[in-house]
Amino acid sequence: MLRDPEASPLSIELIVVTPHEFSKAHIALISCRSFQSLDYDNIENHLFLEEERRMGHMSFRCLEISRWVICGLIGVLTGLIACFIDIVVEKLAGVKYVVVKKSIDKNTEIGGMCISLILWAALNSAFVMVGAIIVAFFEPIAAGSGIPQIKCYLNGVKVPRVVRLKTLMVKVCGVICSVAGGLAVGKEGPMIHSGAVVAAGVSQGRSTSLKKDFKIFEYFRRDTEKRDFVSAGAAAGVSAAFGAPVGGVLFSLEEGASFWNQLLTWRIFFASMISTFTLNFVLSIYHKKTGELSSPGLINFGSFDLKYNIYEIPLFIVMGAIAYGCVNQMVSRRYVHRPCLQVMEAMLVAAVTATVSFAMIYFSNDCQPLETQKSSEDYSLQVPQSFLLNWFPVRVEHSILSPPEHVAVFQGFCADGEYSAMATAFFNTPERSVRSLFHSPAGTYKLETLGCFTLVYFFLACWTYGLTVSAGVFIPSLLIGAAWGRLFGIMLPYIALNPSVTGKDAYQHSRFYFAGGIVRMTLSLTVILVEATGNVTYGLPIMLVLMTAKIVGDYFIEGLYDVHIKLQSVPFLHWDAPATSHSLTAREVMSSPVTCFNRVEKVGTIVDVLSNTSTNHNGFPVIIQTAPGKLCGLILRSQLIVLLKHKVFVERARSRLRQRKLQLKDFRDAYPRFPPIQSIHVSQDERECMMDLTEFMNPTPYTVPQDTSLPRVFKLFRALGLRHLVVVDDDNRVIGLVTRKDLARYHLGKHGLEELHLAHT
Amino acid sequence: MLRDPEASPLSIELIVVTPHEFSKAHIALISCRSFQSLDYDNIENHLFLEEERRMGHMSFRCLEISRWVICGLIGVLTGLIACFIDIVVEKLAGVKYVVVKKSIDKNTEIGGMCISLILWAALNSAFVMVGAIIVAFFEPIAAGSGIPQIKCYLNGVKVPRVVRLKTLMVKVCGVICSVAGGLAVGKEGPMIHSGAVVAAGVSQGRSTSLKKDFKIFEYFRRDTEKRDFVSAGAAAGVSAAFGAPVGGVLFSLEEGASFWNQLLTWRIFFASMISTFTLNFVLSIYHKKTGELSSPGLINFGSFDLKYNIYEIPLFIVMGAIAYGCVNQMVSRRYVHRPCLQVMEAMLVAAVTATVSFAMIYFSNDCQPLETQKSSEDYSLQVPQSFLLNWFPVRVEHSILSPPEHVAVFQGFCADGEYSAMATAFFNTPERSVRSLFHSPAGTYKLETLGCFTLVYFFLACWTYGLTVSAGVFIPSLLIGAAWGRLFGIMLPYIALNPSVTGKDAYQHSRFYFAGGIVRMTLSLTVILVEATGNVTYGLPIMLVLMTAKIVGDYFIEGLYDVHIKLQSVPFLHWDAPATSHSLTAREVMSSPVTCFNRVEKVGTIVDVLSNTSTNHNGFPVIIQTAPGKLCGLILRSQLIVLLKHKVFVERARSRLRQRKLQLKDFRDAYPRFPPIQSIHVSQDERECMMDLTEFMNPTPYTVPQDTSLPRVFKLFRALGLRHLVVVDDDNRVIGLVTRKDLARYHLGKHGLEELHLAHT
Repeated sequence: MLRDPEASPLSIELIVVTPHEFSKAHIALISCRSFQSLDYDNIENHLFLEEERRMGHMSFRCLEISRWVICGLIGVLTGLIACFIDIVVEKLAGVKYVVVKKSIDKNTEIGGMCISLILWAALNSAFVMVGAIIVAFFEPIAAGSGIPQIKCYLNGVKVPRVVRLKTLMVKVCGVICSVAGGLAVGKEGPMIHSGAVVAAGVSQGRSTSLKKDFKIFEYFRRDTEKRDFVSAGAAAGVSAAFGAPVGGVLFSLEEGASFWNQLLTWRIFFASMISTFTLNFVLSIYHKKTGELSSPGLINFGSFDLKYNIYEIPLFIVMGAIAYGCVNQMVSRRYVHRPCLQVMEAMLVAAVTATVSFAMIYFSNDCQPLETQKSSEDYSLQVPQSFLLNWFPVRVEHSILSPPEHVAVFQGFCADGEYSAMATAFFNTPERSVRSLFHSPAGTYKLETLGCFTLVYFFLACWTYGLTVSAGVFIPSLLIGAAWGRLFGIMLPYIALNPSVTGKDAYQHSRFYFAGGIVRMTLSLTVILVEATGNVTYGLPIMLVLMTAKIVGDYFIEGLYDVHIKLQSVPFLHWDAPATSHSLTAREVMSSPVTCFNRVEKVGTIVDVLSNTSTNHNGFPVIIQTAPGKLCGLILRSQLIVLLKHKVFVERARSRLRQRKLQLKDFRDAYPRFPPIQSIHVSQDERECMMDLTEFMNPTPYTVPQDTSLPRVFKLFRALGLRHLVVVDDDNRVIGLVTRKDLARYHLGKHGLEELHLAHT
Repeated sequence: MLRDPEASPLSIELIVVTPHEFSKAHIALISCRSFQSLDYDNIENHLFLEEERRMGHMSFRCLEISRWVICGLIGVLTGLIACFIDIVVEKLAGVKYVVVKKSIDKNTEIGGMCISLILWAALNSAFVMVGAIIVAFFEPIAAGSGIPQIKCYLNGVKVPRVVRLKTLMVKVCGVICSVAGGLAVGKEGPMIHSGAVVAAGVSQGRSTSLKKDFKIFEYFRRDTEKRDFVSAGAAAGVSAAFGAPVGGVLFSLEEGASFWNQLLTWRIFFASMISTFTLNFVLSIYHKKTGELSSPGLINFGSFDLKYNIYEIPLFIVMGAIAYGCVNQMVSRRYVHRPCLQVMEAMLVAAVTATVSFAMIYFSNDCQPLETQKSSEDYSLQVPQSFLLNWFPVRVEHSILSPPEHVAVFQGFCADGEYSAMATAFFNTPERSVRSLFHSPAGTYKLETLGCFTLVYFFLACWTYGLTVSAGVFIPSLLIGAAWGRLFGIMLPYIALNPSVTGKDAYQHSRFYFAGGIVRMTLSLTVILVEATGNVTYGLPIMLVLMTAKIVGDYFIEGLYDVHIKLQSVPFLHWDAPATSHSLTAREVMSSPVTCFNRVEKVGTIVDVLSNTSTNHNGFPVIIQTAPGKLCGLILRSQLIVLLKHKVFVERARSRLRQRKLQLKDFRDAYPRFPPIQSIHVSQDERECMMDLTEFMNPTPYTVPQDTSLPRVFKLFRALGLRHLVVVDDDNRVIGLVTRKDLARYHLGKHGLEELHLAHT
């Protein structure tokens, strides 16, 4: 991948290692041998300050308005993408079900159910194959939900190609294929990644991939500004996926913004709001109910109207605790790295999923009369009777009409006037199954059916997680959680000595915990779930279950963590330095010696240092020639490359080669894909020239004395989003440089502070 | 007030100036001539580092558990205080209404309504008098809602006595009196202050006022840790007041935590959750429905089940925009400073409120038949008919039983079988009136009644805001907003050309905007309102209305801001430095020259510097004697005072006066009320001694070079919660000190950057 101009000169090998997502240990999802950092600290050099000083009050106001406009655009585009995914999935699934239905109708008469099964499995595999091929061969970074990648990005780790247009395309198509292919995946997670890519594109006012520059928003072409927009994009994605704008804002803040700025929060909120609104509006037109804004997100759990009793709270906690035991099992790992094998594996999973489902429906005899469904108070079934006769047509008609309050029930292989509980659980899209599990009245599912379903779906989901397809983990987790909650509720009367706790009471509320156990982004998750269920009284039980899951999870993840330590080679900075790290000082942490440049430096030296692949530094302290080692600034590799490219040499200026003065615009045009040093030709003569860095370096980099404790360095680094922190002695002489990697490698293990072996930066 | 040991040697004059709350300009609510700052940066001196290094992994785990326990305690206590306020207010109001009711029954027969009126006004005035007396004479800081004070505290401004036990007592009693006294105030705002005081007390494991030290939580006796707990307390307060735990967390984050830490957020969330749970649980016992957790907060708007249409969105926006015009009017200001006059003013307002209400009910003939109320679908009236015969007994019975879904309607002076709309609007507590306005079906209120009510209540509320009583502004604002929304809805059919927009449709959703217009803490407000209304589909219109109110508000507040500039003498740091401040550098911003100490300094010099009331510095750079001006540390006034108190002199150590080595505990014991320098006696002999600061100073203070731009300094200062930032030259020599005041005085006015005249720090 040396071709990639954005990648560092070191080769980057991208391996998707862990199949599980979100939790601390899982950041390792993208394990690169070499990571770059993002620079969230403004490079306040002379050029920048000059520009800022030239700008008047009005210019800043215009910028502020542009920011709002961009956030609005991000919201609209993210919402449209969500609509697109939703509609195309429904259409494709519809076509698929019509075909299979016809086959069943034909073959049931002649007794050849096998043909239908094979046809169905083949169709699913075909969809998944397309999805897996584009991911495995064109853009491996688009695999999974993309949330860990976005977390890394917002944390300050530059994950190559993560916010590119190509990634977005592959992601969207991949999700459509996986969901249409019937895999046990959700389409919500990838929306967060999609939103982030949209944001990164729109905010730059150009597409580097399409070589199209609209010459707008040039001010925002730097990491600091771009990150703010990516936060907004991720929030808009959450908002579109779950119809939860506040949850989106919280997600962005939990993951990204270590520095909370009220105005930024407002913009993020605005983007989220616009996104859910766009989705809502377009879907309302699509469903021919223009203007009825009732489906704010891709999923909609329907509304709950239940009260809970204080006696149930311990039950929630028990459920949350039990749940986490399972999560450990989900950490199944896959080491299939060759794209061909990955595609074949995905197809295999798709076929197996289809077969298992088919078999379970065929052999289950869990037929329920339609009457119980209809007489339910919790949920009024409004689908006409004719639709319920066979699950295939119901699926088709129902998906397309998609009234969000409805739960489709499927006849499966049951007699007329009955429906198959198993088919209802298995043949819905996961979103619909979750709704069915939440809303169907007590007695809808038998113990065996539910137990079987939970178990099988659990293993299918585990297997699916590691596949090289674009897909989210949220809905499958929620589905398993819902099934487990319902199972718990049914079993409770058998177990509990207290007869006052009926099964119905208990299972009504505890079905959310599982997602919490796996997902662990809990605060925003609570808000998302509360917003998505449309009922605030659910807040407390959801919180309790999530908190229990988190506490139990934290206990288990310690063990997991040790196992995965070697995999965690991403320099991800957590919230605080490890508690016992006060004994370390900047002197022990820093990289030393540091390659420094003089304020006026020979071009040859610069080229040699930049070309040195063994060090591959990105930031260089600039020192005063006359006073050895005394710090006077900091310059970045990217800046030096632009300077070399434009041949900003002292001699050229002197020899009156009427050279245009280098402007901030030149740096912005090169951002973010700065060319590698190898692509810049410097002649032997030019190597002897001098380069004056004064105007381009950041003259006031943040520094710390060498005795500063690690937590103090960490706090400064994290709070300001730094990339390089210069360590100086009492005389302001450079003695070291602290980078992300230096801080991220310390970790609180079982035996106190441990040092990890991290990827080179 | 020089007696106060916490206050600085400079006299602090506390004047409650502005009657309005929350918005930027309103921070000036507590205008002091001199402010201290809080130190949110850890003082990492030798003692501290030694302690941290001694502590093992387990100690840190214990600390973490203590933090959770403290947050739990904060939640429980805050919830209990909310219960106490709620129950006592209900009881007092009950007694009051019984007395007045008897008088009316007796006097209506003999035609002497005046006597009843006077009795009622007198009762109200008596309640308010008690409330005003304790506030005006015992603790003026307890006036108002206390939210601006908590904002200041979390921002880093030390508001004297704001988190004291005495303040809490006065606040709680004051709120009870104001609400029971029938003023147009809410009891929600003060809960936030109460929660914060509880947090500040519990987390320190002692009460300085009661001179009781439990010898626990000593580790948390510093500003950094205390702030975290105060955030949690404020969140718990919001949570108890509004039943909105997520809203509470957002409030704390918006106001306080510039640095977002996930674990801290979790603890804040936990405190909020426990708080709302405690309130819920205790109230459920009180209402004899143990275990039914249905009243999560002090207010409960009942549940809404309405859909909105996209066409209504512009209406929301128009309403939001119109609303803000009124808010400007609310900025009425009062300059009554003498406590006696303040008490009399409060009593006058109470009497006037009673009289006006009485008159409006008496003269209004807006009688509605009880049937319309009963046949309503939106709202089923469950109060037995007998309760409705007269509003006084209904008020009594109803308050005590307080079924949250009910809206009481009052007969007032109407015939039997009818009820007075005016009495319903006026004689409820504000919370109940809001519910009535939200839930009563269309046609309940006549145009004139509603218009009259809105106007009168608006002026009453304005007048009440500036009183020296403990009270919140949230509910009155919401009430005016609700009335205005309903008015708008009724008027719409008369104005609108589009007949499809019925009055009912329009007013159903737009009643929240007013609080937004006034309160302006919008993101958390949205969440609070969504959580309190129990309906997520309301999110979008609420957001839109709030955003419009904010945008319109921002436009108007610019004007307001200019007017109030001179009042805004609190060094409150906003989120960012003013946009056009890049032209300023640290050199221009800093205070200079700085009083520095040598590493080993003469005691006499230290005492002289500390006693100098004209400078009154709080932080002193420590320099190396041998290399003039070279920075080697930073020491605080409070540390020096502890050193002087314990007479930690070099000579004493030498002369083998077996002196106990000073420990971190000595500093913690003195925190936060360090004695003033005047109280420490230093003899003439001792003045000649030397003091070695090496062990006690912070050896690694954050520094910036003198050319650093203001935004960069600001960001560092704000993100790390600094109190002092040392400005150094290229040789690491101290040339200035940046404090909060230096940064807060720059402000973006109409004509670019302006410098304010701020209070001395």
